[in-house]
Amino acid sequence: MNKATNSVGEVAPQRAHFDTPLALAGGAVLPAFDLVYETYGELNAARSNAVLVCHALSGNHHVAGWHADHPKNLGWWDNLVGPGKPLDTRKFFVVGVNNLGGCFGSTGPVSDNPATGRPWGADFPVVTVEDWVAAQARLADRLGIESWAAVIGGSLGGMQAMQWALEYPDRIRHALVIASAPKLTAQNIAFNEVARQAILTDPDFHGGHYYAHGVVPARGLRLARMLGHITYLSDDQMAEKFGRRLRQEGLQFSYDVDFEIESYLRYQGDKFAGFFDANTYLITTKALDYFDPARDYGGDLAAALARTRAKFLVVSFSTDWRFAPERSREIVYGLVHNGLDVSYAEVESIAGHDSFLLDDPHYHAAMRAYFEGIRV
Amino acid sequence: MNKATNSVGEVAPQRAHFDTPLALAGGAVLPAFDLVYETYGELNAARSNAVLVCHALSGNHHVAGWHADHPKNLGWWDNLVGPGKPLDTRKFFVVGVNNLGGCFGSTGPVSDNPATGRPWGADFPVVTVEDWVAAQARLADRLGIESWAAVIGGSLGGMQAMQWALEYPDRIRHALVIASAPKLTAQNIAFNEVARQAILTDPDFHGGHYYAHGVVPARGLRLARMLGHITYLSDDQMAEKFGRRLRQEGLQFSYDVDFEIESYLRYQGDKFAGFFDANTYLITTKALDYFDPARDYGGDLAAALARTRAKFLVVSFSTDWRFAPERSREIVYGLVHNGLDVSYAEVESIAGHDSFLLDDPHYHAAMRAYFEGIRV
Repeated sequence: MNKATNSVGEVAPQRAHFDTPLALAGGAVLPAFDLVYETYGELNAARSNAVLVCHALSGNHHVAGWHADHPKNLGWWDNLVGPGKPLDTRKFFVVGVNNLGGCFGSTGPVSDNPATGRPWGADFPVVTVEDWVAAQARLADRLGIESWAAVIGGSLGGMQAMQWALEYPDRIRHALVIASAPKLTAQNIAFNEVARQAILTDPDFHGGHYYAHGVVPARGLRLARMLGHITYLSDDQMAEKFGRRLRQEGLQFSYDVDFEIESYLRYQGDKFAGFFDANTYLITTKALDYFDPARDYGGDLAAALARTRAKFLVVSFSTDWRFAPERSREIVYGLVHNGLDVSYAEVESIAGHDSFLLDDPHYHAAMRAYFEGIRV
Repeated sequence: MNKATNSVGEVAPQRAHFDTPLALAGGAVLPAFDLVYETYGELNAARSNAVLVCHALSGNHHVAGWHADHPKNLGWWDNLVGPGKPLDTRKFFVVGVNNLGGCFGSTGPVSDNPATGRPWGADFPVVTVEDWVAAQARLADRLGIESWAAVIGGSLGGMQAMQWALEYPDRIRHALVIASAPKLTAQNIAFNEVARQAILTDPDFHGGHYYAHGVVPARGLRLARMLGHITYLSDDQMAEKFGRRLRQEGLQFSYDVDFEIESYLRYQGDKFAGFFDANTYLITTKALDYFDPARDYGGDLAAALARTRAKFLVVSFSTDWRFAPERSREIVYGLVHNGLDVSYAEVESIAGHDSFLLDDPHYHAAMRAYFEGIRV
């Protein structure tokens, strides 16, 4: 299939500057900030067809299409978003945004701290899902979007969709929460903590001010990403894709690569360490750890969800062990308990957590049907 | 309960030197080597009551009792081994041994390489489960043990018990394979590879010759151990033991400890990095990765097991996701296929892989019954 078929085509990021200070959940105040975003499709006259796509740990604003200078770098959810695709840009006006604290153009650790004129680095405040959504609401204001037809995201992106429904019940009509969870388990936090410690203890981290030293904590980032990949894939898929297949004939009896899976992880780790910012990684894992809408309700998710009014689509994947189907069902139960309108799809897939990024036909059929049912 | 109750009491390690060269699976030849071991109970006149206990990744020869200089440091399987305990030292003569390549006294990377007079370090050859068992057989010869009443081990130790049954069918009457697997999956190897990369890329690793630099790759070892602990505990147990409990009131909005689970992992990592040798860690993970008795049989485990004659007890734990019950069942099926005598216990336990080290009553009752049935 030609890449232009059903594609939004060539796109260009835009930048919005906000100079009203933003008070963050952790107590810090950002005096001003930028958000980088992309849009696909056209906002209709009623401004009723806007869909916000929220990204997960390593994602960004580049959701669909390609940039003139990188024609092969398709957006991370290009298989979902485009003319004729499940999230159809002939019907919807789609917005992708790089979150605060990110490393793809929005204000974050790589940006200059106005107080010092040097990169924020480790001084950039820890931001939360609540902070991201507050910043996204500013962007919605700027774009003249009073209410989103839908907010959608996978994994950490799904938490943002949930947070929209919780914080701005009047500004979101549908929340699509894919491969997500209402909060991290101890095991989820444990994996994040190992990744953080890999970065924090890398001698090239320099207390988060590595920019000034002309280095990046590549060893730590690489380890963090290798570990992440184990949790993104299912055990079954790893067995099917790699099994115990050797890279070359015979065992090496050394610490070079023996098995294909080792080669895959090293490659993924090296690639990631080459473009992602370590401070953003730290911030993002904390945002994941902290998200817990039931915290102020004694752990009662149903009580927390009582104030939502959006309709929900919740989707989980059978082999996702990072955020297993049980975690999605917790959200569904919380919504059902409140008599809210929720659809739930538990999709059979071998691909683990990463399934939400793939174009599995059952999954995409469910997404298509749901988006078709949204009135704009 | 007084620690002396049912205890083997004060014990002292012994050392055996072997100067017949040992040809290793990887092609290297160890000109000579030492094994450090402990024994509990008395070898009977018929020499028919000896039981070999094989250790896993971080274990050693100190299986039961205590040393005069560390009276609080009980052996790692002290709850199982002693007078009146499931592996009863009034009946059995029990041997614990530190494996080749270890860091508790047996010849390994910390030992001096006779060719250079300096520690072997990274030049110590990668050893395998087969090599360990070959070295253990030399120790059996030395102790005058022609045939073990039983060889027992958990996890990697269980692989050694299996290997004894495969390599020396005439020298082992019972193999007790606990919380083990016939080979690692791609996911198992992936976790090992992240741990290895944490060590190998630690600047203090110095290509494995850190001894000469007066440092140890503590950062890497610490990360390896933190990651290991995630796989030793079950998701459920982590939830029960730690959940999302905070270490102190309120979120920190920094990279200090927020959650108890973070504190636990850091503590375990620091402790381990303080006493374990990084080269031994690397070697041991490779021994795990390489173990695959079915390799020479086109992946057919039953065909590989056809030459065994030992009776087997196979034990798995319901929440062990490192080596799940399915992996134990593969061993059981392979044995049953050959009409061999195998007992299998799948124990309900919340404690994940670490269950094999605990004194769960159902588990220990099964072990006691099995050992009682062994005629000596």
